[in-house]
Amino acid sequence: MYYIGIDIGGTDLKTAIVDAQGKILAKAQCPTFANRAYQDIVKDMCSTALEALQESGVQLTDIHSVGVGIPGIANENTGKVIFCTNLSWYDIPLAEEIQKHINKPVFINNDATVAGYAESMAGVSKDTHSSVFITLGTGIGAGIVINGKPWSGFHGIGSELGHATLDMIDGVQCTCGNKGCVERYCSATAIIRMAKEALANIDNNLMLQKCNGNLDNLNAKMIFDAAKEGDPIATNVFNTYIEYLCKTIAMVINIIDPEVIVLGGGLSKAGDFLLHAVNANIEKHLLFKTCAYPRIAIAKLGADAGVIGAALLGK
Amino acid sequence: MYYIGIDIGGTDLKTAIVDAQGKILAKAQCPTFANRAYQDIVKDMCSTALEALQESGVQLTDIHSVGVGIPGIANENTGKVIFCTNLSWYDIPLAEEIQKHINKPVFINNDATVAGYAESMAGVSKDTHSSVFITLGTGIGAGIVINGKPWSGFHGIGSELGHATLDMIDGVQCTCGNKGCVERYCSATAIIRMAKEALANIDNNLMLQKCNGNLDNLNAKMIFDAAKEGDPIATNVFNTYIEYLCKTIAMVINIIDPEVIVLGGGLSKAGDFLLHAVNANIEKHLLFKTCAYPRIAIAKLGADAGVIGAALLGK
Repeated sequence: MYYIGIDIGGTDLKTAIVDAQGKILAKAQCPTFANRAYQDIVKDMCSTALEALQESGVQLTDIHSVGVGIPGIANENTGKVIFCTNLSWYDIPLAEEIQKHINKPVFINNDATVAGYAESMAGVSKDTHSSVFITLGTGIGAGIVINGKPWSGFHGIGSELGHATLDMIDGVQCTCGNKGCVERYCSATAIIRMAKEALANIDNNLMLQKCNGNLDNLNAKMIFDAAKEGDPIATNVFNTYIEYLCKTIAMVINIIDPEVIVLGGGLSKAGDFLLHAVNANIEKHLLFKTCAYPRIAIAKLGADAGVIGAALLGK
Repeated sequence: MYYIGIDIGGTDLKTAIVDAQGKILAKAQCPTFANRAYQDIVKDMCSTALEALQESGVQLTDIHSVGVGIPGIANENTGKVIFCTNLSWYDIPLAEEIQKHINKPVFINNDATVAGYAESMAGVSKDTHSSVFITLGTGIGAGIVINGKPWSGFHGIGSELGHATLDMIDGVQCTCGNKGCVERYCSATAIIRMAKEALANIDNNLMLQKCNGNLDNLNAKMIFDAAKEGDPIATNVFNTYIEYLCKTIAMVINIIDPEVIVLGGGLSKAGDFLLHAVNANIEKHLLFKTCAYPRIAIAKLGADAGVIGAALLGK
């Protein structure tokens, strides 16, 4: 059997035809145009998926199910989207609407959960029993897989690691209304904030050169690159970031202790530079310093993780 | 079938014969005398269990398995105790040693995990799909149940909620070597520390009356009772404690989102006084304020949870 995977974002919607091993046979995508009626977006989701189906050469009768990764929260049982802020979707009967166009079982889950599931089915955590995927991007998301199955909580509100509290008393104000959330210390947004703070009153520095003196253009890659090239201020910022990230990884170990922890999202493109720093620093944050603990790895499916994981939800 | 459950602590070892519904048919216990050779302790574990068996009237042939809850970490696959600080056990072949006396399959897990499992099989979270049990005692432990099965991590080092970081930057020093661990804010030890700090330079107060003016005798019950009776300093301490506990519960919701969160351990004896305060304050800590979230409940099996949960590990 084959599976349709749909990854719906605020900008683009991506679809793919995926086999049972998580291999992509064909892909198609189109812009989301998020401020349309959801029925119109769903229509485009389905026609784009059918376009990929045609390209793949697979027949619709050989499609087992449709899976959708959404940047929000879904009720797995009812097939409804509870909400999806980016798309202004609240209480949307997504499965039902998809079935008007493609009459197959529909599975819906959070996009980070789905990406973590993809890594555990066809990526760096393949054949593992349990994993926690952490997306280090503009924000922080997570995808938990336990006993080989995605877990986003009983009410669909779990795996929101970005909003676990890391610094309760005087923590940085978070966009969610609480203070000291993980996202304020481990996201790209956080490392950029930290670098800007460190560069206050500094005239000349490698990070400033990389952004042509305009801090509005400073991004996480520039900071990582400057640290890699030995810039002392960037190195300090990077080391502090690694300290925070290790605290967060230790939180995941102390609570869930999966077989593997996978780092994904934009910051994970730093690859071995990031991974070596984490591995060199994680042990001092662990509770049981002599016990085996989760392997930490960099995600390998990149932008395809969304469609692959969504597709395999029905497997 | 029936099950033998053993709950081994630093002071006493408790055993019980339990049916498949988690009902205790007979119990027996004896002192642990923790500084003996493990073989001698195991011998007593087994003879005490067989004493309970005799009292229950159940035949050994009707016993399915032996389950043990330990105050430490075990490898479920090898049946070895990785370590148990209270008992000075390191790398002990516990299953093998038990089988010299009672030749049945042996299952071993952490005591908080086992207590949480008991609540989910026969207690307040019975018939739920997932739960997180939090023991509010001298320290903080947790027992995670997902899809009806206990989960203490792939390496056995998970569900150590007490050592997740809650206050990273200027957190209270923890006995584990890290700073700002949950245990430093949510345990009985923590609320006693907070009350003592609040009572510095105070001559007369209801808490002081309850401990006869000797702060060394102050315990968590006295603080809760003084708060219940309206003492302003105790009320402040209690409210701060509830704030910290709600942050921790929100962490569990943001990461795991179980169907139910169960509060157990000594502090949970405060019952409705504690539960009402948590329920009145939890919402402001949640990420998704309009979504359904876990029910919070007080544990109901008390000291029997250990033997019941241990017994049912083999079910």
